[in-house]
Amino acid sequence: MADLHIKINRDKGGIAGQIASELRDSIRGGRLAPGTRLPATRDLATDLQVSRGVVVEAYEQLVAEGFLVSRVGVGTQVTPKTAARVNNTRQRGTAPPRPKPVRRAPGTPACAPYYGHRPTSPDLSHFPRERWLAAVRHVLTTVPSDALDYGDPGGVPELREELAGYLRRVRAADVRPENLVIVGGVAQGLSLVLHVLTQHRTLRLAVEDPTSNRQAPLLRRAGAHLVPVPVDEQGLDVRKLSGDAVLVTPAHQYPTGVVLSPPRRAALMEWAYAGNRAILEDDYDAEFRFDRDPVGCLQGLAPDRVILSGSVSKALAPGLRLGWVAAPAELAEAIRRARGELDLGSPVIDQYALAHFLRTGGYDRHLRRMRREYRRRRDALVRALAEELPEVRVKGIDAGLHVYLELPGDWDELRTVRAAQELGLSAEPVGPMRELPGPPALVVGFARLPAHKAAEAVWGLKVRMSGQSVD
Amino acid sequence: MADLHIKINRDKGGIAGQIASELRDSIRGGRLAPGTRLPATRDLATDLQVSRGVVVEAYEQLVAEGFLVSRVGVGTQVTPKTAARVNNTRQRGTAPPRPKPVRRAPGTPACAPYYGHRPTSPDLSHFPRERWLAAVRHVLTTVPSDALDYGDPGGVPELREELAGYLRRVRAADVRPENLVIVGGVAQGLSLVLHVLTQHRTLRLAVEDPTSNRQAPLLRRAGAHLVPVPVDEQGLDVRKLSGDAVLVTPAHQYPTGVVLSPPRRAALMEWAYAGNRAILEDDYDAEFRFDRDPVGCLQGLAPDRVILSGSVSKALAPGLRLGWVAAPAELAEAIRRARGELDLGSPVIDQYALAHFLRTGGYDRHLRRMRREYRRRRDALVRALAEELPEVRVKGIDAGLHVYLELPGDWDELRTVRAAQELGLSAEPVGPMRELPGPPALVVGFARLPAHKAAEAVWGLKVRMSGQSVD
Repeated sequence: MADLHIKINRDKGGIAGQIASELRDSIRGGRLAPGTRLPATRDLATDLQVSRGVVVEAYEQLVAEGFLVSRVGVGTQVTPKTAARVNNTRQRGTAPPRPKPVRRAPGTPACAPYYGHRPTSPDLSHFPRERWLAAVRHVLTTVPSDALDYGDPGGVPELREELAGYLRRVRAADVRPENLVIVGGVAQGLSLVLHVLTQHRTLRLAVEDPTSNRQAPLLRRAGAHLVPVPVDEQGLDVRKLSGDAVLVTPAHQYPTGVVLSPPRRAALMEWAYAGNRAILEDDYDAEFRFDRDPVGCLQGLAPDRVILSGSVSKALAPGLRLGWVAAPAELAEAIRRARGELDLGSPVIDQYALAHFLRTGGYDRHLRRMRREYRRRRDALVRALAEELPEVRVKGIDAGLHVYLELPGDWDELRTVRAAQELGLSAEPVGPMRELPGPPALVVGFARLPAHKAAEAVWGLKVRMSGQSVD
Repeated sequence: MADLHIKINRDKGGIAGQIASELRDSIRGGRLAPGTRLPATRDLATDLQVSRGVVVEAYEQLVAEGFLVSRVGVGTQVTPKTAARVNNTRQRGTAPPRPKPVRRAPGTPACAPYYGHRPTSPDLSHFPRERWLAAVRHVLTTVPSDALDYGDPGGVPELREELAGYLRRVRAADVRPENLVIVGGVAQGLSLVLHVLTQHRTLRLAVEDPTSNRQAPLLRRAGAHLVPVPVDEQGLDVRKLSGDAVLVTPAHQYPTGVVLSPPRRAALMEWAYAGNRAILEDDYDAEFRFDRDPVGCLQGLAPDRVILSGSVSKALAPGLRLGWVAAPAELAEAIRRARGELDLGSPVIDQYALAHFLRTGGYDRHLRRMRREYRRRRDALVRALAEELPEVRVKGIDAGLHVYLELPGDWDELRTVRAAQELGLSAEPVGPMRELPGPPALVVGFARLPAHKAAEAVWGLKVRMSGQSVD
């Protein structure tokens, strides 16, 4: 049994988070070796003089993140770094059937409009205009002239410093400023990563199925060959995974809204380590988890294997075109060099403004306010659906800016989407997001649907869809 | 003899410019057909009741831009669209020796630091911070929320509208908003153009020699095979041109500072039309011509063959990462689509701010002020060089933010650069910008060298270089 040396600051609050953070650091630092058994929650609670529920919460968080595994009869232990789990997931019985690679003519877009409002767009009427302007004013009245010259294509150092702290704190990422490249959003982040990864070899990139159909043309243009892998209630089905790398949305799968389960996280890690493969983690809306703290990012678990991409598109506005890639230092340097030879980096004023916004707490305050608001909106929509349209199944966790609605088998996907759009809802069919067969479903964004209008919208949908066999 | 139907507004001033503009429109619109002879300057001056010098100035402008040709015994005529000039320039005697393609290991940078101050950087202590902030304030207090959502990857329509007007007016470009794609500067503009042009074929891209050694890695990364073509006092030596496309800096060749001569402009057009080849025009600092109006861009002469790239990097600040590509509509659409699948476009707030800055005249006012200032600085530097270092030859036209200094044959290029840098000058050796042999030379930026310090700087250089054979 390990001696954990956990230090708690009782004045700070968030005791479970503190315990989780201390344990995470110990596992990363090697002080808690893979396979080490942890004390029973009851014992640790007594040692630390906290309630048992607090320790349970900390353990659960780390299990969800993949640092710990918990098994009946064995207790909780630090995730072993053996290939044992690969055997569990991949060699049980015969090999899983390999899905066919996706075929689509190069350059053929998978979706018609390539800009405008999306189901994942935030409510931009809440964009903090005054506070953003104040941040820009701060920048323009304080930065030295040289800051406006040709800049580091990897991004403004002040922003990388602030972001590294933010991602460590909020996403449990294992990241330092030199791992970060500031980019123009997740799309550019992925383009650049694939540009570098495909420079000297072909890359078979496994993608979740269903997945955002906006990304497929982007991934192909960047040189990747896509291999769809099915997603179920536990997220990506790792047993069916093949390819040289994988693109996943572990915190909140797009579009299904499920979270990658702890065994799957562990299996995914094993897959990556077993074949020296890369995991591209798209952390597109992890700021918005409503029922609990978001699951820490995969990158924090395996910073040498995982390339994390995120942006301010959901937290602030897509129009800012501001995001980041966190990658192992060598790859980060290759991406930075690529940007130095592609577009010389992102505009600097907004980078300084975001650094200021992060440093002064404006970003966190805005997120807290929006989280409360979006939670109300999601709750209202889900409640209205349960009351008026119980045959429509809301899937996925309590998070993000969209819900995934599985429709009764006899509903027409496109008709439902059109009906939703007529009601002013931001809706998209899931069909075009699939290569593999699946039930009819749609994605509905709720960020712009005020809570008090949810019932009316769902009622309208019910009316429209009840007449579906009439006209 | 053509009836020219020239309308002059005598209240507006700039009569020569008005005449040139009317003639240009007539040539473009086909009202003045290729080969049409123009009236003698004396006759047209009498007709229009202006002084003859004004007509001469207008004709000269259009000759410089390639719309007109002027030959002894023939007079001035609209440039004929025959292949005759190709014969003049390419089939005289034997074919020119084809230069060897540039060879350099992929990914090897041609220059060490890939960011920071450059000889072409503007004086950023003059960046109009307050007026830029006012423009951002205007944007953030007026644009609708939807403007902050996922935007048109081709750029904000308001900016394309303003820019099209600006480029027509100031650069004599033949451009409408649908020809424009807003990009993150000339580097990204070139990357995107080459990305699209190399998608389905290999592209042999002729480049000026010497040329910016920062661009070579960029051009190669984008998939082009480079073919150097020598530059002389008249600019790119079109007789020695080979390849599928060419990248030129006709208004102010970088680094030599020469302007592409009217016969060469015509020959270059013929070359492009004869082989269905593309001309990539890098208009990097055309805002700063001090002795006369800048020569109109090539794009205005052949909008179906020329792809124009420019940015606000010299006029405002490189850190804004804001520029444009003007291309034939079909290619512009392909570039826009590419951006929609690479990075979803440039950030929108600065785009709206630039549109506001252009619309309200802030951009023009800033340029006028900076033009006066840079002219003083260049004059002072050139005067000091002529007085103290007459053996150093200042080449190129009275324009831009840098001078090209040809050194005596026994001066060491790198030593001279180091001496200049020790004096705080922004200097770079020309050697690394060449593939073909050439005399020792360096580029010195004068944007940050106040006029009253030029003599001291040149004196310091003289002292350092006079001791060059001592240590």
